[in-house]
Amino acid sequence: MDDGRLSVVVVGAGYWGPNLVRNFNLSPDWHVAAVCDRELDRAERLAWTTRSAVAVASIEEALAIEGVDAVAIATPARTHEAIALAAIAAGKHVLTEKPLADNVESGERMVSAAAEAGVVLMADHTFCYTPAVLKIAELIRAGELGEITFVDSVRINHGLVQPDVDVFWDLAPHDLSILDFILPDGLRPEAVSAHGGDPLGLGKACVGYLIMRLGKGVVAHVHANWLSPTKIRQLVVGGTRRTLVWDDLNPTQRVSVYDRGIDFVTVTEDAERAAAQVSYRYGDTWVPALPEVEALSLMVAEFAASIREDRAPRTDGRAALRVLRVLDATSRSLEAHSAPAEVAAEQKEIIA
Amino acid sequence: MDDGRLSVVVVGAGYWGPNLVRNFNLSPDWHVAAVCDRELDRAERLAWTTRSAVAVASIEEALAIEGVDAVAIATPARTHEAIALAAIAAGKHVLTEKPLADNVESGERMVSAAAEAGVVLMADHTFCYTPAVLKIAELIRAGELGEITFVDSVRINHGLVQPDVDVFWDLAPHDLSILDFILPDGLRPEAVSAHGGDPLGLGKACVGYLIMRLGKGVVAHVHANWLSPTKIRQLVVGGTRRTLVWDDLNPTQRVSVYDRGIDFVTVTEDAERAAAQVSYRYGDTWVPALPEVEALSLMVAEFAASIREDRAPRTDGRAALRVLRVLDATSRSLEAHSAPAEVAAEQKEIIA
Amino acid sequence: MDDGRLSVVVVGAGYWGPNLVRNFNLSPDWHVAAVCDRELDRAERLAWTTRSAVAVASIEEALAIEGVDAVAIATPARTHEAIALAAIAAGKHVLTEKPLADNVESGERMVSAAAEAGVVLMADHTFCYTPAVLKIAELIRAGELGEITFVDSVRINHGLVQPDVDVFWDLAPHDLSILDFILPDGLRPEAVSAHGGDPLGLGKACVGYLIMRLGKGVVAHVHANWLSPTKIRQLVVGGTRRTLVWDDLNPTQRVSVYDRGIDFVTVTEDAERAAAQVSYRYGDTWVPALPEVEALSLMVAEFAASIREDRAPRTDGRAALRVLRVLDATSRSLEAHSAPAEVAAEQKEIIA
Amino acid sequence: MDDGRLSVVVVGAGYWGPNLVRNFNLSPDWHVAAVCDRELDRAERLAWTTRSAVAVASIEEALAIEGVDAVAIATPARTHEAIALAAIAAGKHVLTEKPLADNVESGERMVSAAAEAGVVLMADHTFCYTPAVLKIAELIRAGELGEITFVDSVRINHGLVQPDVDVFWDLAPHDLSILDFILPDGLRPEAVSAHGGDPLGLGKACVGYLIMRLGKGVVAHVHANWLSPTKIRQLVVGGTRRTLVWDDLNPTQRVSVYDRGIDFVTVTEDAERAAAQVSYRYGDTWVPALPEVEALSLMVAEFAASIREDRAPRTDGRAALRVLRVLDATSRSLEAHSAPAEVAAEQKEIIA
Repeated sequence: MDDGRLSVVVVGAGYWGPNLVRNFNLSPDWHVAAVCDRELDRAERLAWTTRSAVAVASIEEALAIEGVDAVAIATPARTHEAIALAAIAAGKHVLTEKPLADNVESGERMVSAAAEAGVVLMADHTFCYTPAVLKIAELIRAGELGEITFVDSVRINHGLVQPDVDVFWDLAPHDLSILDFILPDGLRPEAVSAHGGDPLGLGKACVGYLIMRLGKGVVAHVHANWLSPTKIRQLVVGGTRRTLVWDDLNPTQRVSVYDRGIDFVTVTEDAERAAAQVSYRYGDTWVPALPEVEALSLMVAEFAASIREDRAPRTDGRAALRVLRVLDATSRSLEAHSAPAEVAAEQKEIIA
Repeated sequence: MDDGRLSVVVVGAGYWGPNLVRNFNLSPDWHVAAVCDRELDRAERLAWTTRSAVAVASIEEALAIEGVDAVAIATPARTHEAIALAAIAAGKHVLTEKPLADNVESGERMVSAAAEAGVVLMADHTFCYTPAVLKIAELIRAGELGEITFVDSVRINHGLVQPDVDVFWDLAPHDLSILDFILPDGLRPEAVSAHGGDPLGLGKACVGYLIMRLGKGVVAHVHANWLSPTKIRQLVVGGTRRTLVWDDLNPTQRVSVYDRGIDFVTVTEDAERAAAQVSYRYGDTWVPALPEVEALSLMVAEFAASIREDRAPRTDGRAALRVLRVLDATSRSLEAHSAPAEVAAEQKEIIA
Repeated sequence: MDDGRLSVVVVGAGYWGPNLVRNFNLSPDWHVAAVCDRELDRAERLAWTTRSAVAVASIEEALAIEGVDAVAIATPARTHEAIALAAIAAGKHVLTEKPLADNVESGERMVSAAAEAGVVLMADHTFCYTPAVLKIAELIRAGELGEITFVDSVRINHGLVQPDVDVFWDLAPHDLSILDFILPDGLRPEAVSAHGGDPLGLGKACVGYLIMRLGKGVVAHVHANWLSPTKIRQLVVGGTRRTLVWDDLNPTQRVSVYDRGIDFVTVTEDAERAAAQVSYRYGDTWVPALPEVEALSLMVAEFAASIREDRAPRTDGRAALRVLRVLDATSRSLEAHSAPAEVAAEQKEIIA
Repeated sequence: MDDGRLSVVVVGAGYWGPNLVRNFNLSPDWHVAAVCDRELDRAERLAWTTRSAVAVASIEEALAIEGVDAVAIATPARTHEAIALAAIAAGKHVLTEKPLADNVESGERMVSAAAEAGVVLMADHTFCYTPAVLKIAELIRAGELGEITFVDSVRINHGLVQPDVDVFWDLAPHDLSILDFILPDGLRPEAVSAHGGDPLGLGKACVGYLIMRLGKGVVAHVHANWLSPTKIRQLVVGGTRRTLVWDDLNPTQRVSVYDRGIDFVTVTEDAERAAAQVSYRYGDTWVPALPEVEALSLMVAEFAASIREDRAPRTDGRAALRVLRVLDATSRSLEAHSAPAEVAAEQKEIIA
C-alpha cells in the first residue's frame, strides 16, 4: 500500500477474528490484506466486511500475498505455534490471541524465533488495553498505592464448560496477563498452588482457585469459576498507601481508589505491641474518570507502533510467556494434589 | 426462681458479654443471676442493666450462687476450658463464645466432660441463628439446591489486626460454623489447605485463603481478609439444581436462589462428549422473604429448649469441635507451607 | 422479490436509520430495497451494508422503486407527516420513529390517511418490544399486580441538551409509549401537569416532572432530566397484589416482582379506623428470567406480521397518537405555569 | 446540678422519646431531670434507664421540678404548641420533634413566644446533624457545586399508612428540613405544587410529589411514597460546577461528588446556537470520608451550645417554621387540585 498503512492478514474467522478484523479495518494504521480460514466461506463473509481483504484458506496462500507486514492469529491455542513459526519464517510480525500457545515449549520456540528474526511477537492481552487497566498500571507505577500488600481477582459466572481446557486455562489468562501488566516487576511468582473442583465429574476443574506467592509475604489469588450463578469480575489490589478496586461490571464506577490503609510503624518481637503499632486510615474514595475507548483499537495501535518504532510492544511474547509459565505451573500443581509448583525459570538468552 | 425461668451467669463483661446479657434479659426463658468479670466495676455496670443480676469477680463466686442452671462464657478463647470445666463440674449447662477453645485438645476435654456430666455444652455460633442461615439450611435439607457443587465464602473488610490470633482464627470461625450448620453432613473435610499473606511482616496471616476438599470433587473455599478496603460478606452455595447467594450486607435481598444450573446427563470417558452432554438452565431468581429477628434471641431460646428437652442443641459442642479441628488443620497447613493437612478424626466415644 | 419477503425503504440514514437497516436486513421477513437520505453519500454507505439496497436521495425516487411494500421513517419528527402522507398515498405501509409527529394535528392526519388507505401505520416504540416490557405487560394483563396503585418512571442522566426540543419531548416519549403499552386501558390520563426547570436559561426545560392523573386516585409520574450526574432508568408499577420494579440498567435483575402490598378491607368514614384496616404483606421477591433478544428484531417482525395479517400492530398509529396528545398537553401545561392540561379527546371516527 | 450540666425534661415516652433520653443521658452537656408521659408506667420505664430522672405524668409537674433548664417535646405535633407555650412561659428552653406544630399559626405563636421570652426554640431536624448532611451543607457553602441547578429528593418505601397525616406531612418534613439547611438562602420557594395519589381511597395521599420553584428556573422536587416495594432515600443536588448524590442507604458511599457539569458560555436568542455553546464535563467522582457519629448526639450538643452561647441553634424555630409553611402550602395546593400555592410570607417582626 502506498498510503503508509501496514498490511495484516487475520487468520481465523471464528469467535474472535471478526473483532480483530473490525478493529484493524477501522484503524488508520492498518489495511486488512486477507482473512484466512480453513472454511473459505467463513473467511469470505468476514473479508467482505472490510472492502479490502481477500479470503484465503491456508496460511501459505496468506503469506504469499504481496506486501503483507503482519499476521494476526485468532485460532485455537494448539495451532498458534505452527502458524506463528511459518509467519516469522516469512519475516512477518505476529500477533496471537491468548494464551500464546498451549504449552511452554511452544511459547519459548515462538519467542526465540521472533527474537532471532527480529520481528515483533505480541499477544492480544486485550484487558491490558482497557482504560481501567491502563489507569491501574499508571497509578501503581506512580506509587499511589505504595507497596502492594495483596492481589485478589475474581472472574466467575455461569459460563460454558469448555470441551478442551479447564477453567484455569479458559479464564485465568485474563487475570494473569493483567497482573503481569500492572505488577511493577511483572508476574514472576515464586510458587503457584492450584485447587480445582470437579463436582460434575467431567475430568477437569470447573471451579478453580490459584494462589501465587509474590515474595515478601504478598499473595496473589485468582478465583475462576464456570458454575457461579452471578457474574463477578473484580480485582482488588491492596497497598500500604491506598487500595484499589476494579469492578468491571460497574460501568459508572469501574475503578475506585480507597485512601484506606494501615500505617505501620515498627515491628517488635512482641505480637501485642506490634498490633498496638498498627494504625488505620479511613480516608476519601476517588473514582477516576476513564475515557470511553475500545481496548482493541488501542491494542492494534500498539502493534503498529511497536513495528514502526522497532521496539517490544507492551504485551510482547515474553509477557505472554510469563503467563504461559504460570498456567503450566497451575497444571503441575493440580496434578500434584495442589502442592506448590515452581514456575519455570526464564531463559536468559531470551530475556537478554 | 419460681417463675419457671432458667438462671444463667454470664462470664465476661467485655465486647460480647453485653449482647448476651441483653438477650438473656429480654428472653422469657431466662433470668440473669449474675455477671462475672475480673474487673468488678465492669461486671457491676453490666449487671445493673438487668435489674436482677448481681456482680461477682470470680467464677467460684458465680457458681456458688444458689439456683444457677447455666453459665455463658464470653471471655477470650484461651480461658474457655478452665471456666467451662469448673461449671460442668458444678453441674451447670455451658454456652461458650466461638471458638469453643483455642486448641483441639481443650475442646475435646470440654465435650467429654459435658457428655459425662450429662449437661448441655453449646457454642454461640450466632450466624447459625440468623434468618438467612436458617433459611439456607432449610432449602438445602429440602433438596432445593440438589447436590452441592461448590461453596465459596468471602468475609473481608478493613478490619482490626488482632494481637493474639491470625485472620483465620479471627474471621473463619464464622464461615466454618455456618458451613457445619448448612452442609447436610456437617463440616467434615477430607483435607484443608491454607494460604496466608503477611505483607506487613507481623508474623501472622492478615490475608487468608482456606480450601477444604469435601469429597466427590466438591471444594469449599473461604477468603478471610483484614486488609480489604471494601466490606464483603458473601456466601455462594452451588448446586446441581439451583445455586444460592447470601449477601449479608444487602438488607433488602439477603438470600437469592437462582434457578440456574447444569443439567448433566451421563458421564462418558470422552471429555468432549461429556461436555456436549452438559446443558444449561437460566431460570428465574427467587428472593425469599426473611423475618426480622435478632439471631441472639433465637440462640438463647435454643439453649433453653435444649436444656429443658434434654437434647443436644443445634450448635452443640461437637459442632464447635468440628470447627475447631478445621482451624487446627488450617494452622498445621500454614506451618507446612500450605500442604494439605488432614483433619483429626472425631473421637468415637464422643460421637456415640 | 419472489422469496416472499416484504420490501422496505428506510428513509433517514442518520442516528437511528442504521439500526433499522441492520434489523430489517437480518430479518427473514424483510428485504431492504433502498436507503433514502438527502445526503446521498450517507445513504450509499448505509445501503452498502445490506448487499441488497440501492441509495436514493428523495422519497419520490424511493416510492418509484418497483415492489416496495413499506416505508420506514427515521428522520426528525417535523418531517414525518410529509413523508408518511406521500408513502400512504402511494399505498405503502408506514413505520415511523418516535414521536409520531411534532404536533397532534399532523399525527391525526397521518392516522386518518392510513385508516382510509387501509395501510398499516406503526410507531417504532422500541422499548415496547424489549423482553422486560413484554414481560411487564404480560404480568399486568394476567392480573399478577392486582389493581394498579401508582406508576413512577425515572429516566435521567447526564444527557445532551437538544437544540430543538425540551427534555419532555426528548425523553418522555419512551416512558409514555411504555405506559400506553402496559396499562390495561392504554395511556388515557384525565389531566397532565408538567413542571420544568431551566436553570441554565436555555429557554426550555432541562429538568422535567410530568404528573398524569389516571383516575381512581392513581397517579403516573415521569421524571426526565438531562442534568443528572448518574444514569437511572427505573419504572415502578405499584399494585394492590404485587409491585414491580424495572431497572433497565441492571442486566442481571431487570424486572423484580415484590409480593408486597397492602391488604385493604373496607373503607369507613373514620380515617383512623380505615388505617387500622390496612394490613401489610412482606412476601418473597421474584425475578423472572428474560430472553436475550434485540427489541428491534421483534419490532420489525411485528411490522411484517401486522401487514400480512391485515391487523393493527401492537404500537399502531393510534397508540402513537395517544403519546403525542400527552406530549401536547405537557407543553400546554408548561405554558400555563403547570396548571393541569386536559388531553385532547380521541376522534371517534379514528377509534371506530 | 453543680456539675455544670443543663437539666432537661423529656416529654413523651413513645416512639422517639427513648432516643432523646438516651442521647441526653450520654451527653456530657445534659442531665435528664424527668421523663413526662400521661402513661406514668411508660415514663417510669424510660426514666429508669437514666439513673437520674424521675417520672411525672403532667407537664405541670415537670415544670415544677427545681433547676430544669429545658423541655424536649416528643409528643404528637398537635400537642406541641400547648406544651411549648407552657414551658416558655416558665422560662424554659424548648426542643420539639418535627414538625414544629401541625399548623402555621401554632408555629408562629411558638416562635413569637420564644423570641419574646428570650429562650431558645429548636426543632429536632435530626437529619441536619448527620455527617452526610453536614458535609453537603459545607460543600455547598464553599461553592464546590457552583450555582444550584436542581434538587431532587426521593424518600420512598413500604411504609405504614399513618392514621392522622398524609404522606407529605409524614415524610416530607425530613426533606424540607434538609433543604432548608443546605440551601444557601434556606427554603424559601416562590410557589409549591403538590400532587397526591390516593389509590386505596383512604381520603389522603399515600403517594406524593412536591414541586417547589426556587427562582431562576431552579426546581426542587420531593417524591414521598408509602407504597413503594423498595426503599430509596436519595438526594441529588445539581450544580453548575459539580453535582452531588446522597444515597443514605449506601453506608460505604453515602455522598458522591461528581465533577460533571455543563460549561455554559453565553445565552443567545437562537436556541440552536445556545445549545452549541453548551459543553459537557465528565470528570472524576469523589466520595468524602464521613465520621461515624450519631446525629442525635450532635443535635443535643447544639441545643446545649445555643443555650450557653445565647444564640439561635442551627435548626431553630424559624427554620422549622419555614418547613411548616411549605407543608401548609402543600396542603393548600392539594386542595386546589395541585394549583401552585404561595408560601406565606415570613413575619418581619419574627425575622428581625
